[in-house]
Amino acid sequence: MSEVTWSQAEDEVAKAAFMRAYERETNALIQEVNEQTGMITELNQVWRLHDFLSARRHEIDGKYDYRYPVLVFVLARLVKEGWLDLHELDGLEPDKLTKVAALTRM
Amino acid sequence: MSEVTWSQAEDEVAKAAFMRAYERETNALIQEVNEQTGMITELNQVWRLHDFLSARRHEIDGKYDYRYPVLVFVLARLVKEGWLDLHELDGLEPDKLTKVAALTRM
Repeated sequence: MSEVTWSQAEDEVAKAAFMRAYERETNALIQEVNEQTGMITELNQVWRLHDFLSARRHEIDGKYDYRYPVLVFVLARLVKEGWLDLHELDGLEPDKLTKVAALTRM
Repeated sequence: MSEVTWSQAEDEVAKAAFMRAYERETNALIQEVNEQTGMITELNQVWRLHDFLSARRHEIDGKYDYRYPVLVFVLARLVKEGWLDLHELDGLEPDKLTKVAALTRM
């Protein structure tokens, strides 16, 4: 994958989609945290919230990696997880779209 | 300190005070987390909450150490931090009370 080139137009499509997915996922997290904090009545729920945040932070930090050699995999994962619609990647070269679509079915 | 002995009566006083401080501190934490409900509007606030919980968890896990060799220090710290009143340790031997009181002034 490290040999794959991205045109400027493709880069713009990918970056916009990437940022949109990030916005959606982090907004969903903000909402979830707001909901969870109001439900806490016991200490073990505090620690469960802490565990949840540790896991989400680690996951989000690792996932949003905008580097060309991994970008098709990253975009496919975002589609698979529902943060992106495949159509939001319209404008990428057909071979990349095919690859993303194939990866989302794995 | 490892040579200091604790009578059963002293142990009961110390344990009750220790548990009371733990209840107070963890209830305050629960309340503090609950107060954040609805206040989180940005991702960096989520990560700040995570950092806060990491620090509090580490601190609470380390602090509530009910072992005789360190108990006078633990109780003094709880008094100093306001989770215990010195009078709640009435029933301990005078030398221990003196030591706790001295430590809280350090």
